Amino acid sequence: MNFNTILGKKDFMEFLRGKKATFLLSCSVTKTADIEGISQAGIPGKMHLTPTLDAEFLAIKEVRSLDDIATTSKGIPTPGLITRAVHEIKPFENIEFLNLGFEVMPKIDYFKIHNFDIKPSNRIDESAKIDAMAIFQKGLEFGQNYKSSSKYTILAETIPAGTTTAKATAMALGYEECEEYFASSFKKTPNAIRDKVLKSALYKIDNSMDIFQKLSIVSDNMIVFNAGFILGLQSTNHKLVLAGGTQMAAVLLTVNSILKTMGGEIDSSKLALCTTKWIAEDENSNIEAILKSLDFKIAAYYAEFDFSTSKSEVLKLYDKGEAKEGVGAGGALVYAAINGASKGEIVKKVESFIGV
Amino acid sequence: MNFNTILGKKDFMEFLRGKKATFLLSCSVTKTADIEGISQAGIPGKMHLTPTLDAEFLAIKEVRSLDDIATTSKGIPTPGLITRAVHEIKPFENIEFLNLGFEVMPKIDYFKIHNFDIKPSNRIDESAKIDAMAIFQKGLEFGQNYKSSSKYTILAETIPAGTTTAKATAMALGYEECEEYFASSFKKTPNAIRDKVLKSALYKIDNSMDIFQKLSIVSDNMIVFNAGFILGLQSTNHKLVLAGGTQMAAVLLTVNSILKTMGGEIDSSKLALCTTKWIAEDENSNIEAILKSLDFKIAAYYAEFDFSTSKSEVLKLYDKGEAKEGVGAGGALVYAAINGASKGEIVKKVESFIGV
Repeated sequence: MNFNTILGKKDFMEFLRGKKATFLLSCSVTKTADIEGISQAGIPGKMHLTPTLDAEFLAIKEVRSLDDIATTSKGIPTPGLITRAVHEIKPFENIEFLNLGFEVMPKIDYFKIHNFDIKPSNRIDESAKIDAMAIFQKGLEFGQNYKSSSKYTILAETIPAGTTTAKATAMALGYEECEEYFASSFKKTPNAIRDKVLKSALYKIDNSMDIFQKLSIVSDNMIVFNAGFILGLQSTNHKLVLAGGTQMAAVLLTVNSILKTMGGEIDSSKLALCTTKWIAEDENSNIEAILKSLDFKIAAYYAEFDFSTSKSEVLKLYDKGEAKEGVGAGGALVYAAINGASKGEIVKKVESFIGV
Repeated sequence: MNFNTILGKKDFMEFLRGKKATFLLSCSVTKTADIEGISQAGIPGKMHLTPTLDAEFLAIKEVRSLDDIATTSKGIPTPGLITRAVHEIKPFENIEFLNLGFEVMPKIDYFKIHNFDIKPSNRIDESAKIDAMAIFQKGLEFGQNYKSSSKYTILAETIPAGTTTAKATAMALGYEECEEYFASSFKKTPNAIRDKVLKSALYKIDNSMDIFQKLSIVSDNMIVFNAGFILGLQSTNHKLVLAGGTQMAAVLLTVNSILKTMGGEIDSSKLALCTTKWIAEDENSNIEAILKSLDFKIAAYYAEFDFSTSKSEVLKLYDKGEAKEGVGAGGALVYAAINGASKGEIVKKVESFIGV
């Protein structure tokens, strides 16, 4: 299996070939996910459990907080299965969790869960009610003090309705050119519902507000914390792979806006973004264009992986544009690629999880 | 390849997934192995060479102290082949040896052999003549001062007739409920011979003796030293996997008795036992029941590995209950499982060692 370059040169990823990584999963709940029809990243009515179940399945291949793994209403299983499959074939050196607002704590022992006293955020059409400055500071400090025994870290996320809050964040920060570039867990973005939510959210902000005031209303903890984390990590030499799609791109837009306001600089050569083929080739979003809106350059990659050889019709829905990305699936697949895994063994492993 | 849980939760092993381990092989000779028909863990008349040959083969895939690897009289090769196969496919970070009474030192350079001035112990039907208190102290100190660059350590053993001394140890310490639970290197435990040896050994102890007096007569250096090692390691945060069957369970029973007598406590969350499927499913022994006799809880696992797909009739004897475990084969297989090895590649590698 190979990886392909979306932006920049392949050197960053080639340098990481064969090196073991720590996998850091940012887990957060925004009550935006409770809005009917806005996301399919979980069980309707139980979206708030998705980060908990993703954390459990990734760590121990078992869901303890529900009877079964989270699937969409169409039965598409979480991309977390892909990440877990990679972990079984080419294990990460370490998996740790960032509690950026679990509704329910995952029931796992031994694994490090970093707690920051962060609560789930509110639905953005009623104001997220985040203390964005405080959350950003927590991320910044975590980054400044970050120590890892691994050569680099893969940062992923699980937050249902996160593409909606990502788009709201980008719009609130003034990236109007990105309006059509954000993805969705649905093949067909539920634009009517999403636009209504975005309109209500953006109606609450105005240009007299500073960045953090805006983020407090329209964003989510994952974006705000990780913007801080990325900037905090600048004081170290540690390399970071952002594993995600347009949500991780929104984290970078936030970093970009903070730097512009505060006049700072970033050495983005320590940083890259990795995503799935489904995001890279998505007709309804454009991650490359979002990344090109940044004032700094960043390398981006995707893994040459799909379910075309699978026997499972439900997995093949990924190839049709459902689900696409999450739980760092794209970053995990690139990790698998640079550690010598084959596409076939990953497909087989994912199939084994759903009993195919 | 997966691992299964015998006792406790899978979290401990899942946490270790992808992490590199040091493999520590306890090598010891008890002259109990010279009793005809008591063990098949080696060449009749040359049982005392088995730990030497196991150490050589594990380290360098070569036996230098004899012309050929140790096989049973039926030609079943040592489980050390499995451990070596794992080391070739998913190498340990480090292999070190504990000299708990080699008769003949292994002829290997570079590899660390920890020496403690410990001599082979006597046959237990004539009294083992161990200074158990001194051996225990040596283990304790080794544990207290143990430093490793690895994330955790796998502790294994090679000591022919070790299941007999293990059973004698359990009986002497008063675990009568465990009488039927100890395994043997034979499919059919040679009960007539073993019972006679046990009777003679246990006849030499009485209830006025303290634990160490009893151990001095009926036990072996591997059990006594490692009981100390486990307790010494409690002063560190290092995680330890006991790789073995009912012999390692006897080490834990010894730890349990020492704690009861001395009034200490153990944090067994840093500890687990890993064994083979052949021990886990053995009809003639019951490792789960032994572990349930402990006053503390301990997680235990076995690897989903057998030779059912092998072309070798001699290896298939393992599946029929011969040999079963030793040289940390079970722990090595679990290590292989959590580092992404497949059953097929291990079977093939073991076959290659015996020219299949």
